[in-house]
Amino acid sequence: MKSRIGFIGLGIMGRHMSRHLIKAGYALSVYDLNTSAVEELVGQGATACANCREVAAASDVVISMVPDSPDVEKVALGENGLIEAARSGLIYIDMSTIAPAVSQKVAATLGAKGVRCLDAPVSGGETGALNASLSIMVGGDEGLFREMLPVFEVMGKTITYCGKNGAGQTVKACNQIQVAMNFIGLAEALVLGTKAGVDPAVILKVLQGGYAQTRVMDVRGPKIIKGEFEPGFKSKLHFKDLNIIMDTARDLKVPLPASTVAHELFSAMLSSGRGELDHSAVIQVLEGMAGVEARSRQ
Amino acid sequence: MKSRIGFIGLGIMGRHMSRHLIKAGYALSVYDLNTSAVEELVGQGATACANCREVAAASDVVISMVPDSPDVEKVALGENGLIEAARSGLIYIDMSTIAPAVSQKVAATLGAKGVRCLDAPVSGGETGALNASLSIMVGGDEGLFREMLPVFEVMGKTITYCGKNGAGQTVKACNQIQVAMNFIGLAEALVLGTKAGVDPAVILKVLQGGYAQTRVMDVRGPKIIKGEFEPGFKSKLHFKDLNIIMDTARDLKVPLPASTVAHELFSAMLSSGRGELDHSAVIQVLEGMAGVEARSRQ
Repeated sequence: MKSRIGFIGLGIMGRHMSRHLIKAGYALSVYDLNTSAVEELVGQGATACANCREVAAASDVVISMVPDSPDVEKVALGENGLIEAARSGLIYIDMSTIAPAVSQKVAATLGAKGVRCLDAPVSGGETGALNASLSIMVGGDEGLFREMLPVFEVMGKTITYCGKNGAGQTVKACNQIQVAMNFIGLAEALVLGTKAGVDPAVILKVLQGGYAQTRVMDVRGPKIIKGEFEPGFKSKLHFKDLNIIMDTARDLKVPLPASTVAHELFSAMLSSGRGELDHSAVIQVLEGMAGVEARSRQ
Repeated sequence: MKSRIGFIGLGIMGRHMSRHLIKAGYALSVYDLNTSAVEELVGQGATACANCREVAAASDVVISMVPDSPDVEKVALGENGLIEAARSGLIYIDMSTIAPAVSQKVAATLGAKGVRCLDAPVSGGETGALNASLSIMVGGDEGLFREMLPVFEVMGKTITYCGKNGAGQTVKACNQIQVAMNFIGLAEALVLGTKAGVDPAVILKVLQGGYAQTRVMDVRGPKIIKGEFEPGFKSKLHFKDLNIIMDTARDLKVPLPASTVAHELFSAMLSSGRGELDHSAVIQVLEGMAGVEARSRQ
């Protein structure tokens, strides 16, 4: 068992994930630009490092959980990055949601120095991180995946091997397409029905009871028709994921007509100052265009 | 209890629904252009009529189950239609899926002659009709809805009062928006992921296990990745429903950017000869554009 783990990125998700690893008995070295987040983890038994290189030097396995593709490139390949402490035997698991192509580039570059890499993005949000119930989608060597399963099991519940490097990111992108479409379908249904004079609570109930059911309407539908849009998962993050999806689709020459519309609608959320709201708030863009609010009278 | 029921439209759905009504003890008068369908029901105890007017004259409650809005207008308001036998006390329940505006027009026109009308479109398809487990969405007077509940309960399971005349059709339209979007989201996810080199069975499994879950992926996902597209619910019927949705949205001035894309993709299904396939076959349009088939290797 690899007992020394490094954790880079102690944000909303990363700090919970780090805490679970400490509780599970791993010796944890941590790094984040936010010193108060570092202090919090040090208070729980972690060791602070000055940069990503130091984290790698002190660890058998390095995990990162940062916002976007450029952040991962910086952590892995930048100045004072993992690459400066790269050595045969080191393992790097990036759990951020980034472009599959960047995961592949990092895996190839670090791989040339003997570092074995997995991409392992998650879904389940802060609640999933808090309760160690994340879904984890893993790409890379299957033997390494099996070797790292005990580490994943400390942080998540449903852990799926998806294929070669980048495959975890690809499946996460697929997941975000479907979630966006489920919210937009619900939004267009509720806005049309409400403007036609039907109580959105009736529409929601009928859709939930039949072939139209989606998990997002079960979880968020009742909040939407009350006008409650606190996150959950912020729109600006789903927009970031849609950027990844559109870039990947262009690289692979895959036309995605409906996801393109989703991308535009989420772009409208950011331009109208709704980036901090839950992604279910995409309905507000449609409501604005239609001049109606899908709030229940009940 | 109104014991004499007329049934107009003995197609795939209507013949099962009629049979349940006969079994439940109602005296049934029937009409359809297809004489063999009429003979089948007569063999089960129904009385054949020469046209819709005769059905209305012989019945306390007339039910219709026909393909589209013009068919309902013809049944209700055309030559030899219900209007020629209209009288105070007659009840007309249209269970077809048509434009809400046409339901409202029929209800107003027949209403002026003393006929009380409900629109009551269904979901659940042939299986739902066969097993008397249809979902029924009802618009019209709420007292009349309650009066007719015993009749609906012979044919369906989940029966929901949606609001005034046309509200049943509106909720059905909302349902069809969401179902279309759920299938298209799944299709774009599977096509992108497959072209990126991931087994679509892995994508499906991950999406089903989390926030992206939809009932259509549970029911149809395993068939899609095997390339099985027998209906189910035919694409040409979902295209008809999307036509209703787009017309209704235009009338009500509700922009529906994602449903517009769904409408175009289903239009492409018909133009490419896929109208008789299940609506899940919308993935074939996306596969054709991307030059990849999302079939599992497992």
